[in-house]
Amino acid sequence: MAQKPSIPKGTRDFGQQEMAERNYIFDTIRSVFRTYGYRQIETPAMENLSTLLGKYGDEGDKLLFRILNSGDAFSGIDYGQYRLEGDSYDSKALSLKVSEKGLRYDLTVPFARYVVQHQNEISFPFKRFQIQPVWRADRPQKGRYREFCQCDVDVVGSRSQVNELELVQIVDRVFSLLGIRVLIKINNRKVLTGLAEICGFPERVVDITVAIDKLDKIGLEKVEEEMAGKGLNAEAIAVLRPVLLLSGSTEGKLATMRGLMNGGSASGIVSETGLGGLDELEELFGLIDAAGVAQDVEIDLSLARGLNYYTGAIFEVKALDFPIGSICGGGRYDNLTGIFGLPDLSGVGISFGADRIYDVLKGLGKFPADLATGTRLLFAVMGADELRYVLPLAKTLRERGVSVEVWPEAGKLKKQFDYAAKKNIPFISINGSDEIAAATVNIKNLVTGDQKAFPAGDVDAILAFLG
Amino acid sequence: MAQKPSIPKGTRDFGQQEMAERNYIFDTIRSVFRTYGYRQIETPAMENLSTLLGKYGDEGDKLLFRILNSGDAFSGIDYGQYRLEGDSYDSKALSLKVSEKGLRYDLTVPFARYVVQHQNEISFPFKRFQIQPVWRADRPQKGRYREFCQCDVDVVGSRSQVNELELVQIVDRVFSLLGIRVLIKINNRKVLTGLAEICGFPERVVDITVAIDKLDKIGLEKVEEEMAGKGLNAEAIAVLRPVLLLSGSTEGKLATMRGLMNGGSASGIVSETGLGGLDELEELFGLIDAAGVAQDVEIDLSLARGLNYYTGAIFEVKALDFPIGSICGGGRYDNLTGIFGLPDLSGVGISFGADRIYDVLKGLGKFPADLATGTRLLFAVMGADELRYVLPLAKTLRERGVSVEVWPEAGKLKKQFDYAAKKNIPFISINGSDEIAAATVNIKNLVTGDQKAFPAGDVDAILAFLG
Repeated sequence: MAQKPSIPKGTRDFGQQEMAERNYIFDTIRSVFRTYGYRQIETPAMENLSTLLGKYGDEGDKLLFRILNSGDAFSGIDYGQYRLEGDSYDSKALSLKVSEKGLRYDLTVPFARYVVQHQNEISFPFKRFQIQPVWRADRPQKGRYREFCQCDVDVVGSRSQVNELELVQIVDRVFSLLGIRVLIKINNRKVLTGLAEICGFPERVVDITVAIDKLDKIGLEKVEEEMAGKGLNAEAIAVLRPVLLLSGSTEGKLATMRGLMNGGSASGIVSETGLGGLDELEELFGLIDAAGVAQDVEIDLSLARGLNYYTGAIFEVKALDFPIGSICGGGRYDNLTGIFGLPDLSGVGISFGADRIYDVLKGLGKFPADLATGTRLLFAVMGADELRYVLPLAKTLRERGVSVEVWPEAGKLKKQFDYAAKKNIPFISINGSDEIAAATVNIKNLVTGDQKAFPAGDVDAILAFLG
Repeated sequence: MAQKPSIPKGTRDFGQQEMAERNYIFDTIRSVFRTYGYRQIETPAMENLSTLLGKYGDEGDKLLFRILNSGDAFSGIDYGQYRLEGDSYDSKALSLKVSEKGLRYDLTVPFARYVVQHQNEISFPFKRFQIQPVWRADRPQKGRYREFCQCDVDVVGSRSQVNELELVQIVDRVFSLLGIRVLIKINNRKVLTGLAEICGFPERVVDITVAIDKLDKIGLEKVEEEMAGKGLNAEAIAVLRPVLLLSGSTEGKLATMRGLMNGGSASGIVSETGLGGLDELEELFGLIDAAGVAQDVEIDLSLARGLNYYTGAIFEVKALDFPIGSICGGGRYDNLTGIFGLPDLSGVGISFGADRIYDVLKGLGKFPADLATGTRLLFAVMGADELRYVLPLAKTLRERGVSVEVWPEAGKLKKQFDYAAKKNIPFISINGSDEIAAATVNIKNLVTGDQKAFPAGDVDAILAFLG
């Protein structure tokens, strides 16, 4: 019985056109990573569950795709042991019993595992990139998939802001090459900690940051109401007001913040942590000025991405001409590898969102026009003699790097023209007994209508005509 | 508690050097596929089990990695329903209940599924390649992994031998580019069927082929003994003897076989199927002569790969200078997509064994020497001023495609030289206050010891020095 074939929800097939477009994105990103001395690694799709569990919170554990143990996963299991009451079973314990491996949920944890496992083979600072699919058992919806490609670049083993600079330069260069205008927003986790400290609520970093983040949407008054609702007192809110009103140049913002952190706020509290964060931001922006960056870069104190794990710089990139969320982001983490037994290894990294970048390029019509071109030239064939006549030339052109097809079935020209049209093949070559006798080839440009005959041996002239 | 990190058995991490080597193989293969008009697709790692089960035989079903349903896979299951006797449960039924998806076992079945599912978007003949990992719960051993990359190229929707020719040309070109001398062996399933027919045992194709396959190892006498042991009578063995003794040129082999298939054997039986297979082989070798192929190609009637599914040409490629099994193989199949409801679509394809090709290149020392080169130039840095001085030049060189690193920590030169040595970085640039004052840069070739100073703005001269 024939089945109607389908694929699991949340997964995708990538056809030839889409692959060409996706490869254009990946090739661009990869080429920039390489010029900055980052080199590729790959890790297995399956990791031991002991590597993955507990790294993404309870919610993350639930979203892991687990793999049934191979062989007879269910044999020899004493189900009674897993019975809770009545006919209900301890599902969590049972699934751990029959499954010891899971699919990679992101590239960060496998990278941390890799660094620890291979620490003796690695030269630090270790600069790596990794472009591989990850899997999450999320509810599929528009723009959210259960299998998607992550594109991560990280350096571990150096605390220098030169690393942050290079990531900003990489972002700048990638999006310039792709023709996407972006705003690169930078924050620092230590500054957020400092804000909470100077308003007297050091433990409320998240609440404060989340409230600040809403300023654009709901305005100063509502943000202050929200802070009050979260239990911040009037004094604390008074301390934060100048931060909420912060605007102007990067230098101005940094100077204002330095004053506040240095005891100049209404509370008079000094935050050493906050000052340290400002030092880092100041150094980074100084390096950005020295190196030169084409795209917009700004400090955004409301940027609150990854507050649970970022310890220094925080990055987020938005497309200026297309309404979509962040298309790239990352930050510095001080203890990525600690959980695997290698403490105090600081790193910083960013991740490019390939699916969203794809949507931006599609939406703005920025994919190069000639990306679609697979085959450049189709040799039409009407019979066995014509076929044998064109084979050596087809071979030579291919060895010179041209994508060439030879029509495999002797037959009607109409079908061959249709094929060329459907596949957007721009050149067709039709040769008969006259051409064979004269040792020439006829090539027609299907776009312009230009047609020319060449001596079959004049490969350079043919290559020039094919463009 | 720190865990000692590890990866599941049968899986691998690929470090930076190995990735460079693997990418060299994949890039070479991909570039050749493209010049023949083949274009890439990708399919999801997970397929519905209904797509995978029953396609690889009972043994294959056991080797599928199955994925636990997401959410609470075990909740609401009436275990009593799966109880067989005592405390034993119907493991197969239970695993189907908790798992509806599996990891891709090969690229062939997903490709067939893809063609049927997308048949209305595809132009036939459909030429595709696909390079993705597959997963098999095989017992891991030397050279056999549970995750490995397949590299398949197929065309469906054309019965012409031109397709077989192109696959032979692709094999020829790929291994010529990689510098591996190979023997391309070709057989045809119809000829094997014909042999069984003319010796009067049409249903014994596999036994006969397996016996012929052992000729090199055990000799004519033992092969005939084995055939007798399988129940072939003396007359049948007499019919097969001239085949076992077959040698000489391709033309000679084809002529001898044609005589035998055409009633000239001891049995006098004519095999139309066998004659059809010989027609195909003759046409293919004629096309190979017309096109020109650099590597050795020969007919090998003992080639028995994929007898269960190949219906026409059968290919196998061996490295001539390195003892390893087949490094590439494939054949023609007439009903790949039938199981998914699209009958009579003939296709032909081959698969490159990336891991074995890797072993051959390693074994023969054929990887290009400069593959290791990630970073070309390291800017050493001794302080903040030097750092800012080199940043713009580093940026320009990167934009010109050179892989450049800037040492991130101001500090001792020794450590920076050690880093360059460990990473095989061939050029180092050291600049101090003198160079800044003179607006020059010093670059040293660490391999030759050559050292030169350049005006900092003379990028072309610097690029020329960096090679």
